[in-house]
Amino acid sequence: MANPVLVEVTRGNLVESRHRGMVAIVDGDGTLVTSLGDIDLPVFPRSACKAMQALPLVESGAADAFGFGNRELALSASSHSGEPEHVAVATAMLKAAGRDESVLECGAHWSFEQPVLIRQARSLDHPTALHNNCSGKHAGFVCAACHVGQDPKGYVTYDHPLQAEIRDVMADLTGSPLGHDNCGTDGCSIPTYAVPLRTLASGFAKMATGIGLGTERGRAARRIIEACMAEPFYVAGTRRACTRLMKVAPGRIFAKTGAEGVFCAAIPEQGIAIALKCEDGTTRAAESMVAGLLARRFRDEPEIADQLMGIANHTMRNWNGIAVGDVRVTDALFA
Amino acid sequence: MANPVLVEVTRGNLVESRHRGMVAIVDGDGTLVTSLGDIDLPVFPRSACKAMQALPLVESGAADAFGFGNRELALSASSHSGEPEHVAVATAMLKAAGRDESVLECGAHWSFEQPVLIRQARSLDHPTALHNNCSGKHAGFVCAACHVGQDPKGYVTYDHPLQAEIRDVMADLTGSPLGHDNCGTDGCSIPTYAVPLRTLASGFAKMATGIGLGTERGRAARRIIEACMAEPFYVAGTRRACTRLMKVAPGRIFAKTGAEGVFCAAIPEQGIAIALKCEDGTTRAAESMVAGLLARRFRDEPEIADQLMGIANHTMRNWNGIAVGDVRVTDALFA
Repeated sequence: MANPVLVEVTRGNLVESRHRGMVAIVDGDGTLVTSLGDIDLPVFPRSACKAMQALPLVESGAADAFGFGNRELALSASSHSGEPEHVAVATAMLKAAGRDESVLECGAHWSFEQPVLIRQARSLDHPTALHNNCSGKHAGFVCAACHVGQDPKGYVTYDHPLQAEIRDVMADLTGSPLGHDNCGTDGCSIPTYAVPLRTLASGFAKMATGIGLGTERGRAARRIIEACMAEPFYVAGTRRACTRLMKVAPGRIFAKTGAEGVFCAAIPEQGIAIALKCEDGTTRAAESMVAGLLARRFRDEPEIADQLMGIANHTMRNWNGIAVGDVRVTDALFA
Repeated sequence: MANPVLVEVTRGNLVESRHRGMVAIVDGDGTLVTSLGDIDLPVFPRSACKAMQALPLVESGAADAFGFGNRELALSASSHSGEPEHVAVATAMLKAAGRDESVLECGAHWSFEQPVLIRQARSLDHPTALHNNCSGKHAGFVCAACHVGQDPKGYVTYDHPLQAEIRDVMADLTGSPLGHDNCGTDGCSIPTYAVPLRTLASGFAKMATGIGLGTERGRAARRIIEACMAEPFYVAGTRRACTRLMKVAPGRIFAKTGAEGVFCAAIPEQGIAIALKCEDGTTRAAESMVAGLLARRFRDEPEIADQLMGIANHTMRNWNGIAVGDVRVTDALFA
């Protein structure tokens, strides 16, 4: 059966485009709270699982040794816009480990955000690896490797001990096997492993609640989640969805996007986590889906729910500022 | 029944994202040659119907009066990248009618193409209406209006005589009623009318063959289609799909993209036209769909078919140039 249409894009009085999706909401015990579409299909979490990938940085003691606070941990779990503040923190993290940008293996790209890109184009000859949206995660990788005496060279490869450790961490959290069979290469060159949304949500519910994790891992997971919620700008950037979602209810919502229409979120006080994917990989739809689902979870607090629904459903304007249509979630999202 | 998956995006050995779509291929008599998905659902053609919208420019005699050749006509039917050559031709068209950019009502935006945007950011304070991807169409509108003594002011509005004429032209070509009920506002502020893909394809088949059109309209339609095929750079721009598709077989393929995953194409010598939409509005998928369908129509000429399939199916590389997956059409496209 086809995945349900969860987001519609309208123009005039008609629906112009339709986005299908899959959603799993799971609690800390692994109990499925909500299921839409095929949640057993393996999905590459891409950047949505960066908070999981940051665990070795904390568990190894590297974060403490280098004096990292919320901003550094948030940036380690970020897909940032390459704004000056992001670049500065990534630079400082590498410096703390006695390294510089030459150690980064993520590649370089201009900011995905047009206003940032325009400022970059006017001030830079070309972007560096520090401007890569993943530079915070990679700086965290380098710090984690250096702290335990690993040579960071090749830290993005499947066989580097850091990637092996991340594989173990993610297998522990998701309960899904990770290996060559379900491995792809991410945009920043590290391995990414396709797992069912059901298990991805379960992993984030464990991180948010600590249930089923050892004391040390539970504490490290909670510290990363709290760092992201405390410094949402460092998880994404100006006007970005992750940042906006977390600012709606400070300290109460964790949200992280991934390429190709993935979104993960958690509400620690409710003990649940969400993992979703827009079937066609479109970010606009994944953002509306997660905002709508979070709104429903906060329906008893209308001020929060309304702000979240304002992110889920929004008017599109053309180059003259004329309202031409809407992006809106469907009733099927709340089925 | 759900529309079929026509394009898959892979990563490693797995499918990461899926694009569904609808396709109509129709001949000049209006006979349906190929049908995939729901081709009776109204679809906003957006910029894919610009060649139709350019007919008044030719039929009014304005194009001849102002001495317009293939470049000007191609630009009138274009969604260009805002490259200097595009801006120069749009500027010259307005000058021929004794006007300048202040008459344009399309709004302004930076180029959608990153290399062009970077050059613009370094050379311009801000983009003007001339840089809008629709400025060629709008310059054509202004020329058509001025030539017949209409005040161009408000030429983008539903009630302006030029838009009424365009409505008549498109109703004649598609055989679909156009009015307030199926009208939306396009990105450049003109009316856009949702019509079934079946009738949109039929309209382009009429334009490509002249069948069912009066002598004058048939000649004008053919002139616009031939101008686009003769000057494909002026229909889109460097590395753009429309330009690449038309360059594969010069003078034999017409192709025009529209926002939200629409594509129209025609092969005049075969007497057929294609209209398609990616259900979710994604351009990458619409491009693969149209390239795959054109390849199939040229299967007896492998050199052409192979180049078209190279546009349909292509490898995606990450920031380090590593191949991470493919965009590829599915067997269902050829069902």
